Amino acid sequence: MPQLGLLPRRACAALLSQLLRPPCAYSPGVVHCHSQGQESLQVAEAVLTSQLKPHQEKTNFIIKTPKGTRDLSPQQMVVREKVLDLVVSCFKRHGAKGLDTPAFELKELLTEKYGEDSGLIYDLKDQGGELLSLRYDLTVPFARYLAMNKVKKMKRYHVGKVWRRESPTMVQGRYREFCQCDFDIAGQFDSMIPDAECLKIMCEILSGLQLGDFLIKVNDRRIVDGMFAVCGVPESKFRAIGSSIDKLDKMSWKDVRHEMVAKKGLAPEVADQIGDYVQCHGGVTLVEQMFQDPRLSQNKRALEGLEDLKLLFEYLTLFGISEKISFDLSLVRGLDYYTGVIYEAILLQTPAQAGEEPLSVGSVAAGGRYDGLVGMFDPKGHNVPCVGLSIGVERIFSIVEQRMKTSGEKVRTTETQVFVATPQNNFLQERLKLIAELWDAGIKAEMLYKNNPKLLTQLHYCENMGIPLVVIIGEQELKEGVIKLRSVASREEVAIKHENLVAEIRKRLSES
Amino acid sequence: MPQLGLLPRRACAALLSQLLRPPCAYSPGVVHCHSQGQESLQVAEAVLTSQLKPHQEKTNFIIKTPKGTRDLSPQQMVVREKVLDLVVSCFKRHGAKGLDTPAFELKELLTEKYGEDSGLIYDLKDQGGELLSLRYDLTVPFARYLAMNKVKKMKRYHVGKVWRRESPTMVQGRYREFCQCDFDIAGQFDSMIPDAECLKIMCEILSGLQLGDFLIKVNDRRIVDGMFAVCGVPESKFRAIGSSIDKLDKMSWKDVRHEMVAKKGLAPEVADQIGDYVQCHGGVTLVEQMFQDPRLSQNKRALEGLEDLKLLFEYLTLFGISEKISFDLSLVRGLDYYTGVIYEAILLQTPAQAGEEPLSVGSVAAGGRYDGLVGMFDPKGHNVPCVGLSIGVERIFSIVEQRMKTSGEKVRTTETQVFVATPQNNFLQERLKLIAELWDAGIKAEMLYKNNPKLLTQLHYCENMGIPLVVIIGEQELKEGVIKLRSVASREEVAIKHENLVAEIRKRLSES
Repeated sequence: MPQLGLLPRRACAALLSQLLRPPCAYSPGVVHCHSQGQESLQVAEAVLTSQLKPHQEKTNFIIKTPKGTRDLSPQQMVVREKVLDLVVSCFKRHGAKGLDTPAFELKELLTEKYGEDSGLIYDLKDQGGELLSLRYDLTVPFARYLAMNKVKKMKRYHVGKVWRRESPTMVQGRYREFCQCDFDIAGQFDSMIPDAECLKIMCEILSGLQLGDFLIKVNDRRIVDGMFAVCGVPESKFRAIGSSIDKLDKMSWKDVRHEMVAKKGLAPEVADQIGDYVQCHGGVTLVEQMFQDPRLSQNKRALEGLEDLKLLFEYLTLFGISEKISFDLSLVRGLDYYTGVIYEAILLQTPAQAGEEPLSVGSVAAGGRYDGLVGMFDPKGHNVPCVGLSIGVERIFSIVEQRMKTSGEKVRTTETQVFVATPQNNFLQERLKLIAELWDAGIKAEMLYKNNPKLLTQLHYCENMGIPLVVIIGEQELKEGVIKLRSVASREEVAIKHENLVAEIRKRLSES
Repeated sequence: MPQLGLLPRRACAALLSQLLRPPCAYSPGVVHCHSQGQESLQVAEAVLTSQLKPHQEKTNFIIKTPKGTRDLSPQQMVVREKVLDLVVSCFKRHGAKGLDTPAFELKELLTEKYGEDSGLIYDLKDQGGELLSLRYDLTVPFARYLAMNKVKKMKRYHVGKVWRRESPTMVQGRYREFCQCDFDIAGQFDSMIPDAECLKIMCEILSGLQLGDFLIKVNDRRIVDGMFAVCGVPESKFRAIGSSIDKLDKMSWKDVRHEMVAKKGLAPEVADQIGDYVQCHGGVTLVEQMFQDPRLSQNKRALEGLEDLKLLFEYLTLFGISEKISFDLSLVRGLDYYTGVIYEAILLQTPAQAGEEPLSVGSVAAGGRYDGLVGMFDPKGHNVPCVGLSIGVERIFSIVEQRMKTSGEKVRTTETQVFVATPQNNFLQERLKLIAELWDAGIKAEMLYKNNPKLLTQLHYCENMGIPLVVIIGEQELKEGVIKLRSVASREEVAIKHENLVAEIRKRLSES
């Protein structure tokens, strides 16, 4: 029953409270009346629709996908398949195993993992039994899996949907259901070697997808915290201020500063000190500089972070990708669970191509080190250090889709290789026998589901669908024991002995 | 907070009623106290746990997947990938396009589509906004897609998870989250041609998977209804009696009869008449027989169904699969939306193989014709006839997994081709350079994330993981500009010029 589940509870609370208060204090009838009013309205609606259903349902009934979600058309599925194949093959190239987890988890497992974003978690209705929530990312379920199975070492990838109740107006072009592709390395290893591989993977995928030039911002949570500490941010405000800084890619420093001071009560001079830092970005030389920074170098954790970044850059140079990486003190990453290195890949705005309105895509991949998360799930608090990355495939899909649109290239949504046609009536039986022969030979084949289709209709279908070959059977062919094989592109036709048909088709397909 | 959603509502109703009653009638304070008691208890609990979280959470906190769900291990994912690849490639062989829909739909879209099973639908919590439910199958979302986009013709496949709140005790070995693979043909076509292709697809997939001998039961909803009508079942009881009959694969006729008579109030003589029919099954000859059946032949809709089945068998013979098909009058299929031909594939019990306890798997694929479903979503009620099938891949996964276990064959969970090793200390830099070279050449490569691993540890890793090739670099090799290439199987090592390494590896891999 829509909303009825909640409203009466509010109404009830109001009423109960009245019974517990001395009569004189009686007043919040407003609440009661209000919710009462709403309730009866709701009931009326409910009754109305249920009465209408048999007759008028059709008219008063909106057919749509839920807010913030969408269907994926065959055209979009083709793009998806291409992109995901490239991503997954990269993950496999780096020795990752596949893993899958349920779409929902116990609600309590997800709480206190996502900082300010926790409000975006979808809960399932209590239908008796456990309280469940749809997964918000693939990282927390992975950590839960490791703790639950006492796995101390694992390199896994996971492609799956996650759900977040973003208000689409607030966050442009984001969906509430979207696909994530995660790669993570769990285990106690020598410093920065797995971390460097994660950045290598991001580079391989982004170059492989040919999305244009990109940059990967790198920072370390310990440097962020150190920075806040030396600037005089009270520790209680670290997360709040962090999530303000995190908006610097969307908002100007002026606006971020205002948010920190006016909304989050940070002293202006503290904000300005942060400002000096968060405007710094550069390569390994900036790391060296920060070692010399009079204030930051006083902070133990910041120094640990800088040590790691220095080592990381050394490995990135050996991987030949250091010029793609930028040490950026404004990178914070919202999520609570990061403990060390963090990174985020952005596409650099390329001048819009002919007829293509420039897309502001922002981050297309991100990740970091989270050494404490598994311990939050382990009964004894045993930790398994983890580092990983997530590819923002949805944004990548939309870029590739737009590229295809503007390029105007026609995308095939089927893979059919051969079409079975006839110029004559009453040839359904022969067509059915013939197409079964092709299917059983593993050839992708289609025919029209009509008893007597027109030949022209059949040939047009092939041209529209981009089917390369047509086999044609009629009385003449049947008599001579041959099948006509037609190339849709050249329109050439040759008669082929029926017994040689499959071989000939295979030959043609292997050539093309 | 469990039950709180309901209890206070009841309490609330009671309290509201009191406000509408004269004071003298005041009494059911019990309800109020009771729910109050419970409520405060719940609240207390909530507070308690939230207070405990930082400290004792670990101890009072169960880490598990939600009831009826499970993680899929890398081993299981390998099986899944193999099976799904075969299924999807068959769907593509028949010219299907890919389609994806959201995991949840507007709740009202799913109501009144699943008959007695509607209670198994997962609802999402009302967090403000639309009322949503997790999809229960892939068919209703497909119909919704067709109506929403005014698509009149489409052949699509869809692989995705669906969710049903089965009580695991009731339905053995079923999960509440499971994967479905659907193929459907929508559109107005000549009779039985698409229907026959659906059965052909089921045969291709089940033979392709080599699960042993199978049988596909076929019936028609119009024959079922006709049968009920001529036996004297009141039309209001059709669905209820249908779902009893549907249990004949799990229950004896005696028990089903008892359910129909005792629980569903069917006259015993009517039950017995049904009994005569539902025990009939056979090939096309049984279809012929039923045409002659004195009572059934009196029913117009039953005759339509029989006409279609006759034609269907003709096409199935041309496809060469008629001996796999059995016309079975006990087949009913629970779902409300079927309107014509229905079918269900079962694996025939093969004598358990060595050490393999016999699995009772029941139905592994099913489907049918649903010509009315799209119209339920179309504002003007325009219909799009549809026929389709769903592969019960979960059951297939478990069979294949069990086969693999008993066969004892070791399954590789990674695809790594080459391992980068060193016999010496302080060779991390060279290993990193070398592995990047391999990755950039598209070779699947791994190394240990240690500065100075032991050579034996590295070689053992390769043997455990089934990695076929090892490249070894040390001082000697570095000096001579070569790399040692080792075959893990034969343990042979050869020195190869560094610049020829990738080519040689590719050669070795293409040979194996």
